[in-house]
Amino acid sequence: MIAEIITIGDELLIGQVIDTNSAFIAKQLNKIGVSVYQITSIQDDKSHILKALEDAENRVDIVILTGGLGPTKDDITKKTIAEYFNDALVLNTSVLENIKSIWQQHIKTRLLQVNKDQALVPSTSKVLMNTLGTAPGMLIEKGDKVFISLPGVPYEMESLIEHEVIPCLKRKYNCPYILHKTLLVYGLGESALAERIESWEDALPSHIKLAYLPSLGLMRLRLSTKGFDEKVLIKDVQSQIDAVIPLIQEEYAGIEDEEGSVEIIIAKQLTKLGETLAIAESCTGGAVAERFTVNPGASAYFKGGLVTYSTQSKINVLKVSEEEVNTHSVVSKQVAESMARNARELFQSDYAIATTGNAGPKKGDSEAEVGTVFIAVATQNAVYSQEFNFGNLRIKVINKAVNKALEMLLKEIFKN
Amino acid sequence: MIAEIITIGDELLIGQVIDTNSAFIAKQLNKIGVSVYQITSIQDDKSHILKALEDAENRVDIVILTGGLGPTKDDITKKTIAEYFNDALVLNTSVLENIKSIWQQHIKTRLLQVNKDQALVPSTSKVLMNTLGTAPGMLIEKGDKVFISLPGVPYEMESLIEHEVIPCLKRKYNCPYILHKTLLVYGLGESALAERIESWEDALPSHIKLAYLPSLGLMRLRLSTKGFDEKVLIKDVQSQIDAVIPLIQEEYAGIEDEEGSVEIIIAKQLTKLGETLAIAESCTGGAVAERFTVNPGASAYFKGGLVTYSTQSKINVLKVSEEEVNTHSVVSKQVAESMARNARELFQSDYAIATTGNAGPKKGDSEAEVGTVFIAVATQNAVYSQEFNFGNLRIKVINKAVNKALEMLLKEIFKN
Repeated sequence: MIAEIITIGDELLIGQVIDTNSAFIAKQLNKIGVSVYQITSIQDDKSHILKALEDAENRVDIVILTGGLGPTKDDITKKTIAEYFNDALVLNTSVLENIKSIWQQHIKTRLLQVNKDQALVPSTSKVLMNTLGTAPGMLIEKGDKVFISLPGVPYEMESLIEHEVIPCLKRKYNCPYILHKTLLVYGLGESALAERIESWEDALPSHIKLAYLPSLGLMRLRLSTKGFDEKVLIKDVQSQIDAVIPLIQEEYAGIEDEEGSVEIIIAKQLTKLGETLAIAESCTGGAVAERFTVNPGASAYFKGGLVTYSTQSKINVLKVSEEEVNTHSVVSKQVAESMARNARELFQSDYAIATTGNAGPKKGDSEAEVGTVFIAVATQNAVYSQEFNFGNLRIKVINKAVNKALEMLLKEIFKN
Repeated sequence: MIAEIITIGDELLIGQVIDTNSAFIAKQLNKIGVSVYQITSIQDDKSHILKALEDAENRVDIVILTGGLGPTKDDITKKTIAEYFNDALVLNTSVLENIKSIWQQHIKTRLLQVNKDQALVPSTSKVLMNTLGTAPGMLIEKGDKVFISLPGVPYEMESLIEHEVIPCLKRKYNCPYILHKTLLVYGLGESALAERIESWEDALPSHIKLAYLPSLGLMRLRLSTKGFDEKVLIKDVQSQIDAVIPLIQEEYAGIEDEEGSVEIIIAKQLTKLGETLAIAESCTGGAVAERFTVNPGASAYFKGGLVTYSTQSKINVLKVSEEEVNTHSVVSKQVAESMARNARELFQSDYAIATTGNAGPKKGDSEAEVGTVFIAVATQNAVYSQEFNFGNLRIKVINKAVNKALEMLLKEIFKN
């Protein structure tokens, strides 16, 4: 089965909003063996929506639309879908009850006609009840094809995908199993990695596809396959992973978690070991802590973090000695290590990581070149650090520093 | 002039990577009067790329492709473009020099044939030199239409858009001026806002388009127009803004910065006043700090932040009294206010904001319901706080708390 995702909204086409919905939907579809053939972002415009529906119907089996279901005048998706299917909008009383209930519980202003009108749906559609918001999801079948329209608000859409769309598609189609495994590789560029594993890559069976995904300071190597025998696929891919790991032994950092990334691997391991983490950040400004705390369960291992952005706060709050700062500069191996050591003590954690550097665009409180970053890791027995230069683009420096800090911590945790 | 953006890469279609490139490109094109008609994400597959090129050529004037230009075997964009234009790949010596220079400066492994092959470009293309990476941009003209292929690595793509693509399009086309102004509105839902401004909206001239952009705890109201007389457009839109503000006086929080959002408005104002900020976060876990520090210039006003995730760290590091925690619970008005007050003192800042709450999915160190968050603001003269319940979805709780904290700080700063 193949699908197309159509995201509707002028805000996407003027670059005001980044389309995060498509990636979420694509990931969930993949898990049940539905491949996404194309993602198309279009305007809140009737003729454009009609054309996109027609094109998608010709290309794929499953069409999922998001956006344009709000109560205001710029939201025209529902009317346009009804027109596409030569259908009329009718009142769905269950949806109306849901809207009234949301109003009673959460909303102080009075219920308007435009809100009630959100209970109008195409007469041939099956309603996918949205308990988190007032715009219902809708599913329309046309022969073997399915059209699904969902609200664009991410958490409403996500809940509908999980609780309504996926179960429904699983019932309707006999889908193959799709398997992706992604290896995390640090310290090798794309072509150097490709050269290292060339003979292995050339010998890959044709049903296993390989992709190189470079990101700042980290390469991800993805193996993908699909078929109806799940056990055989898992075995095939695992044997390829077993064959490639010896070729990249030094640089290999693990398998990316299905749901996440390096920080999830770290989180799981710390939780398993009952060990804890503290973070002291300067140039990364909270971004390392945020990578951990955005995921549930962080309180099991994350003691806390400090963003000591100013030199003064490194001295006053994190108790780095003023003398050390003056002797070595605030961007130095010594200060990074003191930050990590002191954060570990302050938060009474097993591990601490610290970053200090200059992310640019200008030089700050030190003479360090833009892009210079020191990252330190403190453990019960030792503190060590590394110096990096991540170039002169602020966002690149920050992201590379975050990835490198996670890498150093990952290696430390799995060393034991 | 209208454009289509085609992003190429299987990683987009399996949801492994979120397409941030399109929003960046769309925003830059908009600034020079080029409207983006559609964004299409497709697979690393020859026939799919060829079809997408053909469709886009029929729809728009300018086609911008990103991705698939790496040195490895899964990168096939360049060959496919050459095939689409019945062209051959030829060696470009300037590109080869650039590749060699990047190797000499940054890369330890040896230069391979696949790296040198990145200097091959379609014979009829104009090279857009990529000084940040080895894959060149390419521009091909076909009649009045332009096809541009760029690497998918965001900072390389961004640099090429800014330094090569935009100047080139401005020379080639006489583009209209496109103007967007976005008003930030707090505390009103989509339909309540629509009702409040209905008569104003109905009277909007047809060349000004209105969009409602709801996000967690914040509504953005966007006015868009385009035309050839920049001054007239600015005057028209400003007069509409002047007319709508009195209708939403209480809830109106300002005009969104062209390049950013609330945190940029706060940053500019603090920098202008020479005042400073500290942040103490519990449930938001570094996300508030990160919203500020990701932008250049944060060191001018941001003293530092604390992520006191555990109760112990609130007591030990932030010096909230144990008695207070025991009496009122760690998720309470009193603790939020102490966190803000103590953060302000610790970092010696003019303002401090603090968050404490339970983002879920389970109850933590307090009996507070999932979704309960207290946010406090401390100033030189006062500390105050508000209690919220942001529902039971972790990511929603965190994002709403971040937006609400920014809103409270914004109002406080502009009060003076």
